[in-house]
Amino acid sequence: MRAPPPTCPATPLGPYESAQTAQNSYARVMSEVYANRRSRLRDHVNAAGTAAALVTRPANVRYLAAAAPQGAVLLLGRREDLLVCAGPPDDRPYEGRPDEHLRLHVLASHDGDAAVAAAGLAAGQDADSLAVEEHHLTVTRHRAVASVAPKLRLCDLGGAVEQLRVVKDEEEISCLRIGAEIADQALGELLESILVGRTERHLALELERRLVDHGADGPAFPTSVATGPHAGRRGHRPTDRRVEEGDFLSVCLGATYRGYRCEIGRTFVIGTSPADWQIQLYDLVFAAQRAGREALAPGAACRDVDRAARQVLDSAGYAEALPPLTGHGVGLEIDEDPQLGPSAMGKLDACVPVTVEPGVHLPGRGGVRIDDTLVVRPEADGGPELLTITTKELLAL
Amino acid sequence: MRAPPPTCPATPLGPYESAQTAQNSYARVMSEVYANRRSRLRDHVNAAGTAAALVTRPANVRYLAAAAPQGAVLLLGRREDLLVCAGPPDDRPYEGRPDEHLRLHVLASHDGDAAVAAAGLAAGQDADSLAVEEHHLTVTRHRAVASVAPKLRLCDLGGAVEQLRVVKDEEEISCLRIGAEIADQALGELLESILVGRTERHLALELERRLVDHGADGPAFPTSVATGPHAGRRGHRPTDRRVEEGDFLSVCLGATYRGYRCEIGRTFVIGTSPADWQIQLYDLVFAAQRAGREALAPGAACRDVDRAARQVLDSAGYAEALPPLTGHGVGLEIDEDPQLGPSAMGKLDACVPVTVEPGVHLPGRGGVRIDDTLVVRPEADGGPELLTITTKELLAL
Repeated sequence: MRAPPPTCPATPLGPYESAQTAQNSYARVMSEVYANRRSRLRDHVNAAGTAAALVTRPANVRYLAAAAPQGAVLLLGRREDLLVCAGPPDDRPYEGRPDEHLRLHVLASHDGDAAVAAAGLAAGQDADSLAVEEHHLTVTRHRAVASVAPKLRLCDLGGAVEQLRVVKDEEEISCLRIGAEIADQALGELLESILVGRTERHLALELERRLVDHGADGPAFPTSVATGPHAGRRGHRPTDRRVEEGDFLSVCLGATYRGYRCEIGRTFVIGTSPADWQIQLYDLVFAAQRAGREALAPGAACRDVDRAARQVLDSAGYAEALPPLTGHGVGLEIDEDPQLGPSAMGKLDACVPVTVEPGVHLPGRGGVRIDDTLVVRPEADGGPELLTITTKELLAL
Repeated sequence: MRAPPPTCPATPLGPYESAQTAQNSYARVMSEVYANRRSRLRDHVNAAGTAAALVTRPANVRYLAAAAPQGAVLLLGRREDLLVCAGPPDDRPYEGRPDEHLRLHVLASHDGDAAVAAAGLAAGQDADSLAVEEHHLTVTRHRAVASVAPKLRLCDLGGAVEQLRVVKDEEEISCLRIGAEIADQALGELLESILVGRTERHLALELERRLVDHGADGPAFPTSVATGPHAGRRGHRPTDRRVEEGDFLSVCLGATYRGYRCEIGRTFVIGTSPADWQIQLYDLVFAAQRAGREALAPGAACRDVDRAARQVLDSAGYAEALPPLTGHGVGLEIDEDPQLGPSAMGKLDACVPVTVEPGVHLPGRGGVRIDDTLVVRPEADGGPELLTITTKELLAL
């Protein structure tokens, strides 16, 4: 682990405990963490006048139950919480084990829908209403849930669990920090190898292998390697184009560690002497990215962080070339709330990890993208905590 | 390409054309293929009394439009078909380009929902009803679609596009055949290397790299490598366990080629002399898998194919250890209709590619899984066409 993390609300483990102590207390405290999350959700649900809730979105199930076996759903019941599984939960590494204090209910038939079964169980616990995730359930599945328990009034849970997930505890941030360290290592090793002549696809595969070598569960998202005219494109899928002298090379990767996903993006120049336009474009995107990072603070409006980065590029005449967002939250999913864009609502809190990733892509020429994962921290704690520490100087490789 | 393919209905390219001829006629005939698919869907929709249809499931969009850019939906309109895209379609390799004869409609705002915009466009074409994919649209999205065009009566398109996708044309089968050849090559190369001491995760990454080396777009699904007590488990996620002498080693992988996904699974023994129980279990699963393959024929009931494989294992006392399905269709998705299981409905047609993949896993000991991709063909054409030709003899490595 690199910098000792500043303290945060809802910290289950003190940041300075030794690895051994942490190991011992891990199981004990984590079960409390999950129970506490469920309790906060239950308060929200009950305050809305609903007796029970059905959580189906896998990342939400994992957040509340420690694991989301394939097809499993979480029922916050009127009398008891149940993790309803379509089959016996596999012993899947890197996906966690269900919280031991949560009762498992395993369907007898393999091809049943756990959401439908859970609605039946909710009715069996005398609930008269059930909040469901309408942004996740399909119309067909919602109809099946409704028809298994016709007396149950279904209502919308909305993004309640996603909102709980926005502010992270120190255990979650620690997973992100380790993931960022792994991504930094994988990227650093790649930069030491010979790049000219290798294809985008092979470089991407090489990076993903190194992520796993260094202990990642796997890549956090499909690794993007973009050369020459592709460079700087957000979400570019690697092709068979080979790295050439004079290219911009932009790389975006991330590690998943204990389910938590981080992101780093860097742009390099291939060859000894970058062209003037490359230096100018790089300096500009760097300035935009720094402005975005410096705008991160508890209480800052999400759209103001976006504007800080965007206006640097706008005023240089690149308004058209800009992506819809300049950053987003990360956690159990690679793209979470908050969204840092011109129409984003809301303000940042402390202990919210976000990316800051402005870029410019000039069709036919290429471009630059610089992407960090940071944790919003108050000024008193030293300001935003940078998790992805690979240098942002323009490296000529 | 290996065996010359027997002819099939709706063959867009003759099987014996040279590569050059095929290249030249490819663009010309493919556009007709997509237009023909949309025309068949339109007939279905109109026969149900509906004016227009909105296709949102990405594999379905790709099937009808040649490509499914991120967030894009297909509107089969009353007057015109439109591919509605959330942004300008990226030049994404391996994902195809939209059919040139289909008009693109690109949303002005990046964060709009193409499905909602398409509903507005359908109403603008004076449609009074719109069939939507209720098994794919979430409740929230369905509500947004309904509210943008309140006079449009929404109804369920159901699995109409999935049903069209079941029987493949020779162009699709040719993509599957090439994908299977790539998977065979990757597997064959792995078997020539030293395995003892390597972890499941590294073997899986190595296989995925070789798939790409040999021309795959990417893996068709997460490659599964299972050693010792993990062997034979369907969908096992690779761990850090290392291959040991005496282990069963089961591997399941597949290549995506031009969007089409195939699957092969094999089980090996590590070391020179398999134990008696290993030989017996292998022979049993092999017999079950052969029985399943031999049951594949146009007109055969899906459940009878399953039963053919399953009863071999049942009668040996492994009823409890069996998976819910012994095979499934493959194509643009790795798990398509038909499903080969005890409660499956329907019959097989010619030119339907399916997997046959029975397996037995004994907790704590390991097991065997053998998995092929085959195309159902009539007896007159030589019976089922085996796409994955790696030997199924028990190899001791």
